[in-house]
Amino acid sequence: MTHALDDAQLVVPLGSGCRLGSHRVLEPKGALPQAAWKLDNTPRAYANEILCDVETLNVDSASFKQIAEACGGDALAIAAQILATVNERGKQHNAVTGSGGMFVGRVAEIGPALASRDDVAVGDRIASLVSLTLTPLRIEAVDTVDVATGQVRVCGQAILFESGIYARLPDDLPTDVALAVLDVAGAPAQVRRLAKAGQTVCVIGADGKSGVLACAQARDRVGREGCVVGIVPHAGTPAAELLLERGYVDRLVVADARNALAVLAALPEALPALADLVVNCVNVSGTELASILCCKDDGTVYFFSMATSFTAAALGAEGVGKDVTMIVGNGYAKGHAGVALQTLRDHPAIEEYFVARYGARPPRES
Amino acid sequence: MTHALDDAQLVVPLGSGCRLGSHRVLEPKGALPQAAWKLDNTPRAYANEILCDVETLNVDSASFKQIAEACGGDALAIAAQILATVNERGKQHNAVTGSGGMFVGRVAEIGPALASRDDVAVGDRIASLVSLTLTPLRIEAVDTVDVATGQVRVCGQAILFESGIYARLPDDLPTDVALAVLDVAGAPAQVRRLAKAGQTVCVIGADGKSGVLACAQARDRVGREGCVVGIVPHAGTPAAELLLERGYVDRLVVADARNALAVLAALPEALPALADLVVNCVNVSGTELASILCCKDDGTVYFFSMATSFTAAALGAEGVGKDVTMIVGNGYAKGHAGVALQTLRDHPAIEEYFVARYGARPPRES
Repeated sequence: MTHALDDAQLVVPLGSGCRLGSHRVLEPKGALPQAAWKLDNTPRAYANEILCDVETLNVDSASFKQIAEACGGDALAIAAQILATVNERGKQHNAVTGSGGMFVGRVAEIGPALASRDDVAVGDRIASLVSLTLTPLRIEAVDTVDVATGQVRVCGQAILFESGIYARLPDDLPTDVALAVLDVAGAPAQVRRLAKAGQTVCVIGADGKSGVLACAQARDRVGREGCVVGIVPHAGTPAAELLLERGYVDRLVVADARNALAVLAALPEALPALADLVVNCVNVSGTELASILCCKDDGTVYFFSMATSFTAAALGAEGVGKDVTMIVGNGYAKGHAGVALQTLRDHPAIEEYFVARYGARPPRES
Repeated sequence: MTHALDDAQLVVPLGSGCRLGSHRVLEPKGALPQAAWKLDNTPRAYANEILCDVETLNVDSASFKQIAEACGGDALAIAAQILATVNERGKQHNAVTGSGGMFVGRVAEIGPALASRDDVAVGDRIASLVSLTLTPLRIEAVDTVDVATGQVRVCGQAILFESGIYARLPDDLPTDVALAVLDVAGAPAQVRRLAKAGQTVCVIGADGKSGVLACAQARDRVGREGCVVGIVPHAGTPAAELLLERGYVDRLVVADARNALAVLAALPEALPALADLVVNCVNVSGTELASILCCKDDGTVYFFSMATSFTAAALGAEGVGKDVTMIVGNGYAKGHAGVALQTLRDHPAIEEYFVARYGARPPRES
């Protein structure tokens, strides 16, 4: 019993923090982590936190585009900018775009209050499914910046709060394919919940990443008696051909969803009785009214697109007197990562498409 | 048979237009009426239109505030500005705020294709429940401008499309009270659908116009076994006292809903098991996270507030790992006007409150 008081202090376990992470907020006091300017990024887990060794930051595309432009596309300058942000704020939160991204890393420590979790273990390779704008992050060094993809290899540590969500990276899929799927995991998971046997489902933006997964889940759920219709801006793309050839859609309509009248003109042929469920997966603004017009009275419009305007949706439905339930695409749903990854395993043609399009790194590379 | 060809042309009945009104769009071609710069305001009904003699424009408050400020609060200048807009665009669509309002008028003509409608007759006094931004309008003269309320008395005509919605003004309520209620009719109608017996409902902004009506419907629906909790920014207001004294809420929490941590701190006492249904009726931005935190996993958050940010809601729920269904407050629901007005008739204390607060003109004045 000869250790000094200071030594003893060092090994006192940390207690439990706020489950939302407010105990990590340095400025301004009283804010939650996403709204905060600066977080405490001390790389030591509170009793209800998970500490990770970070390998890669997947900076979101709006943020990366802004940084790259400000740095004239120079990888070293981009690295310096990211390091400066993280040093200043304790998180990768782009002050211009307000956005972050996600990280890939390995679990280094699980706080004792979370020890009973069966979905994660020390040593697991995981992707964070909460934004970097609320994730305490410390970076020792930036190794490489991939200007084409926005992937930044770093040496550092990050903290996941008790309320934070994450997914173990699968062994059977390339990391980049898994990330591409996890990024839009909410869409297939919600379609799986909302679509029912025999229904007509319309997926707007069916040829995008989330759209393809949404079509596959819709096809599974509505069955032989049901119908899946996709709306795409261009015919003949690899995704459009995949959807048609493999029967993930019964019909593909080529129309610009920003042009409500053009979509309306296509409806008598494409959706004579309109859709029970409309899934908006388009990544451009101004498609709310077309989505509403495709939906039956008493039907549901699910807006997964982050380009959705709340007021355009609310006033659009009122303006055309449509009594539809419009749902905000929650990025999280219980089990969404599993559902999204399983969609690829259940549909080899879709896995093949994703691997061709997004795959680069092999699984479990280090 | 001596009338000239020109005379015959004049009495040829008009055919049916597009049910959404695109046949009235002059510029740009191919737009829908809300997005259009200029509408054809010819005061003659197509076969599937309703022509009204307009008495009053209820310019929406954002638009009226902008016009009044630009005109230095001068009623004559405001009248001239409104006349200029309507003459130029064929609708009262404020180009700065992008918003409109609603009108009150008397039905002058119902096109033959709509003759079977049983909810409206020639001579009825109605309020339009679609925005003035998509309503063809012609004004002969502006009589008075009430700078305090944004109500503009005019002599003019307006067109309702086949898809347009409206409500007959009731005989038993002052016009201004009916308008105040119809303006937020979606809120009580949706709460009536969503709240179930025995549930816990939390109304954020319970002391506003839509909040009071939402509390009354929630109380009716959840019954004795259920619980209604209101969140208000200030104690002791007439609305807060009404809600507590008449038992429309079981508990009132005083908290600023923009401060998510303050709301979180109040939850163990106010909503120990959280709410099955959260209704956001607050007219300020930044309350999405507090709304989500009040809701149980698998519960529903209904955002009636037009100040809701789609991304703040979507990313907020993901950031705290909450699997909740978030619904965009559709301004329209079948029968919403009837449900909203009936709420007052069923609850004399609420009617009394609305009459004291919003009532001025007697019903059926001319």
